[in-house]
Amino acid sequence: MKSRHEGLEELLEGQIFVEGGVCAAKGFKAHGLNCGINPNKEKNDLGLIYSEVECDAAGVYTQNKVKGAPVIVTKDNLKKSGNKAQAVIVNSKNANTCNPNGVEIALKECELVGKALSIKPEQVIVASTGVIGAAISIDPFVNAMDELVKGLSYDGNRRALTAMMTTDTVEKEFAVEVTIDGKKVRVGGMAKGSGMINPNMATTLDFITTDAAISGEMLQKALNDTVKVTYNCLSVDGDTSTNDTLTVMANGLAGNEKITSEGADYEIFKDALYTVLLNLTKKMAADGEGASKFLECRVLNAPTKELATKISASVINSPLVKTAMFGCDANCGRIMCAIGYTEGDFSIEEIDLDLISEAGSLRTYEKGKVLLFSEEKAAEILKENKILIKINLNQGSESARAFGCDLTYDYVKINGDYRS
Amino acid sequence: MKSRHEGLEELLEGQIFVEGGVCAAKGFKAHGLNCGINPNKEKNDLGLIYSEVECDAAGVYTQNKVKGAPVIVTKDNLKKSGNKAQAVIVNSKNANTCNPNGVEIALKECELVGKALSIKPEQVIVASTGVIGAAISIDPFVNAMDELVKGLSYDGNRRALTAMMTTDTVEKEFAVEVTIDGKKVRVGGMAKGSGMINPNMATTLDFITTDAAISGEMLQKALNDTVKVTYNCLSVDGDTSTNDTLTVMANGLAGNEKITSEGADYEIFKDALYTVLLNLTKKMAADGEGASKFLECRVLNAPTKELATKISASVINSPLVKTAMFGCDANCGRIMCAIGYTEGDFSIEEIDLDLISEAGSLRTYEKGKVLLFSEEKAAEILKENKILIKINLNQGSESARAFGCDLTYDYVKINGDYRS
Repeated sequence: MKSRHEGLEELLEGQIFVEGGVCAAKGFKAHGLNCGINPNKEKNDLGLIYSEVECDAAGVYTQNKVKGAPVIVTKDNLKKSGNKAQAVIVNSKNANTCNPNGVEIALKECELVGKALSIKPEQVIVASTGVIGAAISIDPFVNAMDELVKGLSYDGNRRALTAMMTTDTVEKEFAVEVTIDGKKVRVGGMAKGSGMINPNMATTLDFITTDAAISGEMLQKALNDTVKVTYNCLSVDGDTSTNDTLTVMANGLAGNEKITSEGADYEIFKDALYTVLLNLTKKMAADGEGASKFLECRVLNAPTKELATKISASVINSPLVKTAMFGCDANCGRIMCAIGYTEGDFSIEEIDLDLISEAGSLRTYEKGKVLLFSEEKAAEILKENKILIKINLNQGSESARAFGCDLTYDYVKINGDYRS
Repeated sequence: MKSRHEGLEELLEGQIFVEGGVCAAKGFKAHGLNCGINPNKEKNDLGLIYSEVECDAAGVYTQNKVKGAPVIVTKDNLKKSGNKAQAVIVNSKNANTCNPNGVEIALKECELVGKALSIKPEQVIVASTGVIGAAISIDPFVNAMDELVKGLSYDGNRRALTAMMTTDTVEKEFAVEVTIDGKKVRVGGMAKGSGMINPNMATTLDFITTDAAISGEMLQKALNDTVKVTYNCLSVDGDTSTNDTLTVMANGLAGNEKITSEGADYEIFKDALYTVLLNLTKKMAADGEGASKFLECRVLNAPTKELATKISASVINSPLVKTAMFGCDANCGRIMCAIGYTEGDFSIEEIDLDLISEAGSLRTYEKGKVLLFSEEKAAEILKENKILIKINLNQGSESARAFGCDLTYDYVKINGDYRS
């Protein structure tokens, strides 16, 4: 059996997978190191991404009312700079949230980076992840900045990526190459986050880079559309972080004619962004805290897209469905139950339900009623570590996908004593 | 340290606790036995409650679109009978939900009970709990009915109660005596349910009996008002059952002048109903699946009651808060985070947060910012098995309480393999 991390990748036609993550696109360098916020010196805790030229930038952020200081500062920076950016600084182990001096610290980080790279402080994207409400000092940032900048390289993507990992167990990066306006264009990204990800909110920490030439406005538009059907369809535990940040930086070095309106070029770019975000989303779901299985819920033939999305989120969020999947128990009544408590106007009486994995496919409910199905076959299917729950509403033509993982002893273990 | 089940009881002035649960009120008999739906013969699986005279009745039910057949039949019965009822039949181990012949089975149960007790089938309240989508036969009901009716007695409350327990680990019943119109009036109830209870929905299986004389209309009004601030403030895992049913039967044998409108008598009755439901709610929270701790979240000084309720539910529902409580980890940033993702218009900057237990009280956040608090003191407080999370919004005068429990390894264990 493949691990739950293998074989998740999806590409659209005309796209080529490339190595390099956030350094895949031209002109992007990265580095990461341990600056001492994390007492474990083996673990990187401070990462930097740098573009050799100024970028157009776009972002989406947590909708939590409690916002990490870095979120406040980044939003403010991009506003001040007219959506231009040139670097990302990110640390783990401390979320810099709910601290009395949080904004001050985040602003100082931007100043430090700006000075070290000779760019404007407001062109720095700043992000933090880790414990909320833990005291933070600027000293580790000050002491590490020289080394961090000196270490920047075209293959530093994994060093930057590991610097933002917390309970993540695998490195999550993805990049694709497409052709726009006769030019090779790359879009790549790195993601962090395995718990505290809710389908109704933005995202976790994610940084996307591209050498496409595209205006900030079109970049934001592409991002908004794409996030709806990727990150916002991801759930690990239904909680929503205070620090969720997803930014895209486009430096234009691919040399395509700048995308400033919708059209064929925009669509190719948006598809590339979609593929990167989709693959990062699936990787995050598969790496949910304590996960032993990757779950996908696909809702078909719904009256509206919104309803399809809501139902898929209900199912993927249900602790009872998640524990049943962990136990390889085909307790599909729990799936029906989670469908049933979704808000919205639809009929239960038309619904067909299938469980699918590499071991096969099994219909368990038809027209809303349970079928006499083989428990042996069901157990065989659920023993796999990638499970697809397919729900056909049979009352429309809209569809949606949501991604998640099972709920295991290890989720409880990881979160019962996270701070120590 | 007291167990998490001890010392939860609350009474209002003028109320006396009485033994007897659903048999505490005059004229109510009950019985329970094993009829074979549960292959474990030691475990009761079929219960009956009977009033010697016809009752006015009221009910609230699950809002899940997938409804157990018994819910459909009970609602229909009370409609047909003009909100009159005289008996409750309840089984465990099979929810009779999503079965092609579910309604047929539930109707036959009512016929059987009606015939055996010489009452109208539509005056029977029918309920089931257990696995969804498991085949069910009428035979065990047919075979057990004679013995079930013969066994009815004024002290059968615990036999009926144990018949509806599933993963419950303690028996949950409560009764009070009050004086209305110079007459002693009793209100008592029994509850089942330790998982799958959501704050936005009705309840779990709960049957309340009273010898008060009160019209069906006033009974329903009292029930609706009371459920909002008791059962609907309870959460174990955020899932919502397909079979939730809460009914009240009032047989009038106390001899008070019938309550047909609001006024002093109505208020005394409503308070008694509140006390019974509040105590059953707290017992259900303390007995949440796998729970090691009882949690209460109290929100004070909110701009609206609705917002106070929503915030308390967000906190009590958060898997990250629940696992932190299990781990005795004062990771209060997670509480702030759960407050922050509550929908509604309020300011984080005014919020004070205290952790309280029998070991003491500790302020951890003030005006939305973390304080330097003693981790030792916090650990001491959280080691207790009844924890109060007190959130003062400082921006209004409304308050709310929500009840729940921690998320433990045992929750995962219980639900990873519930059916076998």
